[in-house]
Order: sequence, then structure tokens, then C-alpha cells
Amino acid sequence: MFMRIDHVGIACHDLEEKIAFFERTFELTVVAREVNQEQGVKEAMLHIADGQGGGSYIQLLEPLDPDTPVGKFLAKRGEGVHHVAFGVPDVAQALETIGGRGVRLLDEKPRHGSMGSSIAFLHPKDVAGMLTELVQAPER
Amino acid sequence: MFMRIDHVGIACHDLEEKIAFFERTFELTVVAREVNQEQGVKEAMLHIADGQGGGSYIQLLEPLDPDTPVGKFLAKRGEGVHHVAFGVPDVAQALETIGGRGVRLLDEKPRHGSMGSSIAFLHPKDVAGMLTELVQAPER
Repeated sequence: MFMRIDHVGIACHDLEEKIAFFERTFELTVVAREVNQEQGVKEAMLHIADGQGGGSYIQLLEPLDPDTPVGKFLAKRGEGVHHVAFGVPDVAQALETIGGRGVRLLDEKPRHGSMGSSIAFLHPKDVAGMLTELVQAPER
Repeated sequence: MFMRIDHVGIACHDLEEKIAFFERTFELTVVAREVNQEQGVKEAMLHIADGQGGGSYIQLLEPLDPDTPVGKFLAKRGEGVHHVAFGVPDVAQALETIGGRGVRLLDEKPRHGSMGSSIAFLHPKDVAGMLTELVQAPER
């Protein structure tokens, strides 16, 4: 079901400062920047590797507003790992399978993620406290 | 420098229960179980994919005692992502490079990690709040 660790999403206060840090310190390269109004974030994807069905990335997330999920996370916990995303061949099918096994779904249907992907989130309380994202990369 | 996301380490209260959950829900397979006295944990590695220089895994961590780093993490934050590990070709060289760029090192020299690997940790306050591990897989 899981083909790769697609990305680790890190909440931060200052996207540009953190991009510069990750590029300088770990020699990573930004391959995409986006504003996602639906999720209330501006974000950057730093490429680590290519894998089965898609790549692996560090995703940096800055909230557009304090009153967003990532803004509230930062206020409560400070900077750190916000979620972890796993690549799957088909998000809709994975949601059906995983939901059928008793995990609560934060998204009943796939929605738009970074770089043209389809994504959905699982309830962290059902996955060992880890906010878990499923990612289906776009057809190339 | 980073060749892959090697693993996401998740702190949990009951290792066997969480192994059963991850196997049943996400169809993952445990490929190694270890007790690491130095780090005060018993742990399991669930295989996700093979990548450059090593594999990608979910690592489940149960503290051997409340008075260990993972035990204290659980008491403070509850279950969830404890650290993220990235594969590098040479941990000693990566430590020298990263330390030279101003990141505080929790380990000045590589030590023993899961499945025969060499590992070292970086200070989370210097890496966007993320406890960051460097992993060099053993020679095959």
C-alpha cells in the first residue's frame, strides 16, 4: 500500500528563512513553491530522492494566518514535524481500505495537494499520534 | 548529502500493539526488532521501500523506562513523531560538514543505530524543531 515516504511536513514561522537554512545546511534544492489557500499555508518542497511512483521531499509550511491548522500547531507546539506523508498508488482506494479497517478519515475524498498530487489525511489519534497524509503523485 | 528519508521514528506506549496496528492497517512488515539499551528503547522497523544506499522505514519506539528520552517525550507530548532520519553516505563526514555550518550536534561521533547502521543526532532547535538523525546503512 505504501510505496515511499513522500514527505515530512515541517511547520515553521518564516518560510524563506527556513528554505535558506535547509538549502545551505543540507544542500537540498527547492523544486516547488505554492500557496494553498484551502489549507491556509504557503509551502516549499525540497527534493531528497526519487522513489516508486513519485519523489521524497521535505515540505516546509508557513501558515497564512494564525487561525489556520498550521498556525494553531505553531502556537501550541512551536516549530517541528506537522505531518508525514506516504505515497500510495490510488488515494481513493487507500481511503476505502484504511477507513474499512477502522481508522477515522479527515478527508472522505481526495483533494488537491502539492505539485498536482491527490491527497487525504488520516486522524492522528488513530495512527499513533502521527498526522498521516496519503499522496498520489500526478500522472507524468 | 541526503540520499533518502531513512525512517520516521514514532514514540508509542505499547510496541506490540502498534506493530499489529501498522501491519494490519497499512500492510507493512516488520523486518527487525531490537532492544537498544544505550537509547533506552525497544523498537521495530517496518519496511516501506528500498532507496539509494538503504531502505525507508517506519520505526516504532517504546521506552524501556519512563526516565529515558523517549519516555520523557511520551509523558510530555504523548504518542507521535519523535524524530526523522535521513540517509547519508558517510555519517562522520556529514557531521563535520553540518557542524561546520553551525548546527549543534547531539553526537560528535557516529554511534550504533538500528540494523547495524551508524547514526548521529542533530539538535532539534537548530533544525526547525525536528529531532534529526543521520543514518549510514551498513555495507552489504
